[in-house]
Amino acid sequence: MSTSEIDQQIEQAIGAIQAIEGLKDIYFVACGGSYALMTPNKYLIDRESTTLTSDAYNSAEFVQRAPARLGKDSLVVVSSMSGNTPETVAAAEFAQSKGALTVGLTTDPSSPLGTTVDHCIEYELAPSEANDRAAACVFNKLLFKLLETREGNSKYPAIVSAQKNIAGVVERVIRSHAERIVSFGQAYKREPVIYTMASGSNYGPAYSFAICILMEMQWIHSNAIHAGEYFHGPFEVTDFDTPIITLLGLDSTRPQEERALAFSKKFSQKNIVLDAKEFDFSDVPEQAREYITQIVFGYLLRAYANRLAEDRGHPLTVRRYMWKMDY
Amino acid sequence: MSTSEIDQQIEQAIGAIQAIEGLKDIYFVACGGSYALMTPNKYLIDRESTTLTSDAYNSAEFVQRAPARLGKDSLVVVSSMSGNTPETVAAAEFAQSKGALTVGLTTDPSSPLGTTVDHCIEYELAPSEANDRAAACVFNKLLFKLLETREGNSKYPAIVSAQKNIAGVVERVIRSHAERIVSFGQAYKREPVIYTMASGSNYGPAYSFAICILMEMQWIHSNAIHAGEYFHGPFEVTDFDTPIITLLGLDSTRPQEERALAFSKKFSQKNIVLDAKEFDFSDVPEQAREYITQIVFGYLLRAYANRLAEDRGHPLTVRRYMWKMDY
Repeated sequence: MSTSEIDQQIEQAIGAIQAIEGLKDIYFVACGGSYALMTPNKYLIDRESTTLTSDAYNSAEFVQRAPARLGKDSLVVVSSMSGNTPETVAAAEFAQSKGALTVGLTTDPSSPLGTTVDHCIEYELAPSEANDRAAACVFNKLLFKLLETREGNSKYPAIVSAQKNIAGVVERVIRSHAERIVSFGQAYKREPVIYTMASGSNYGPAYSFAICILMEMQWIHSNAIHAGEYFHGPFEVTDFDTPIITLLGLDSTRPQEERALAFSKKFSQKNIVLDAKEFDFSDVPEQAREYITQIVFGYLLRAYANRLAEDRGHPLTVRRYMWKMDY
Repeated sequence: MSTSEIDQQIEQAIGAIQAIEGLKDIYFVACGGSYALMTPNKYLIDRESTTLTSDAYNSAEFVQRAPARLGKDSLVVVSSMSGNTPETVAAAEFAQSKGALTVGLTTDPSSPLGTTVDHCIEYELAPSEANDRAAACVFNKLLFKLLETREGNSKYPAIVSAQKNIAGVVERVIRSHAERIVSFGQAYKREPVIYTMASGSNYGPAYSFAICILMEMQWIHSNAIHAGEYFHGPFEVTDFDTPIITLLGLDSTRPQEERALAFSKKFSQKNIVLDAKEFDFSDVPEQAREYITQIVFGYLLRAYANRLAEDRGHPLTVRRYMWKMDY
């Protein structure tokens, strides 16, 4: 599908959302990598919206927790790459049974999720190649357009403009990391544990890298440490040989990430730092940088993952359980 | 202080909360172990409240994220054991600067946090000995009393009745685990990585054990895996020798925990299971069991931690960074 087709799907979904009279709560619901994409959505709503609350839930947690407020005044945004994730399809059905409006993102509108939700918005899967049809871009457009319509939020044009240039931005960023990516693969290929660390909107890509890349695709022990929480427990595990990948973003929580890194650099010799201040954002509007950074981190981390997988002779496609058995 | 003095402080706080005309959002804000206690509070509000939304934030994240909705219609509940946690004191001040009402739990009402918040509620620190003045008990009372007052929720008497018996409940539960606790210390004392796993309200004690006990107090790598997320990434790290401590609670999300355990038992030979169905809850009212379980897990896990520390010759009081330097 094309960007303009996606934009039309977004417009239609927003028409339906605006028709919810007492709209107050958004539930962002998904699993794993798709759940990781929901946490920056909550950051965006927290930062920008004066009329809406939101939270991100794993799909099974959402259904079993069954929030008492869920009902006809609720918007439930679900997402699944294939559209086949059973827990997420069940979450959409559960939300509808309570009278909530459901909007779903998937790459396949004919999938169980695509045909279940009230409004389906397509996205394109291309984890190593950036474009404005990626899920994270579509989410940003959906939410900023909604806030423009509801609250007069003025950032939507800047977001769209930033997304138009995202392919070039990501290519430049990855190129500027080329040597560091090669060193990373060699230096870290035998590590049994690698942590990630971030806060705010960047916690999403840090979580995704920890659970989907390191644990799932590389069988390496990991944990996405929240940079603010680091000083209240996790930092004691820092030793000279503790590998920590720290994201330094451009959102309002960067001071936490900087503080955590300043500490870990003192005591660990294995710090990998991805600093968005180094990114060439010359063609990204100032207003959009806070929100596009987490998307760029996703692609940059994927480039690190590709190299790590190659050096370890353990392709990112290998699984021992996922899709191979019932669970 | 006595239980009845705490009850009076709760009553006063609720009077002030009820005076917030447009109350809609509760922000639960704290760091580390105190943050861990906030996540079951969010579970409770999700499950029980039809008029309130809530979320749990690390204190630094809260201040830097600066939610746009935060204002005179907000309640901010903060907590710090000592009352000296700088990020949490700053969070209370920030909330007040936005016009929000602040309620704070601490063991020391004369601390910076105790003297900053609009309403201070005391609690007692006794991590190895249960009583109804523990933070988790005080939170349950505060929230169920608030919901009784606002919404006619009927569970408060059951909660109070359960808490009166909590010392005996915890003693019986720990006694029933005595042999397993000894085996755990011996069998796991040389493990470099130990995971915890839970969902719903029990994610709180699982997170606390992972970051405060294993990482902070034992320098063991860890990660609190959400049981629903397990199948969407983390489960691929499961091997015959991957240690996972799974909590099986009694709340509405138990099916997720059971499903995750059923899988991990197939492929790991190192499963430690704490199952609340085995707990002797004969003097705990049915209605309170869903909510008291996470509190009992906290004490039971502490008994496991005490033994692990002893077998490793690494006391839970040892730190290399915390309180020893500026950070």
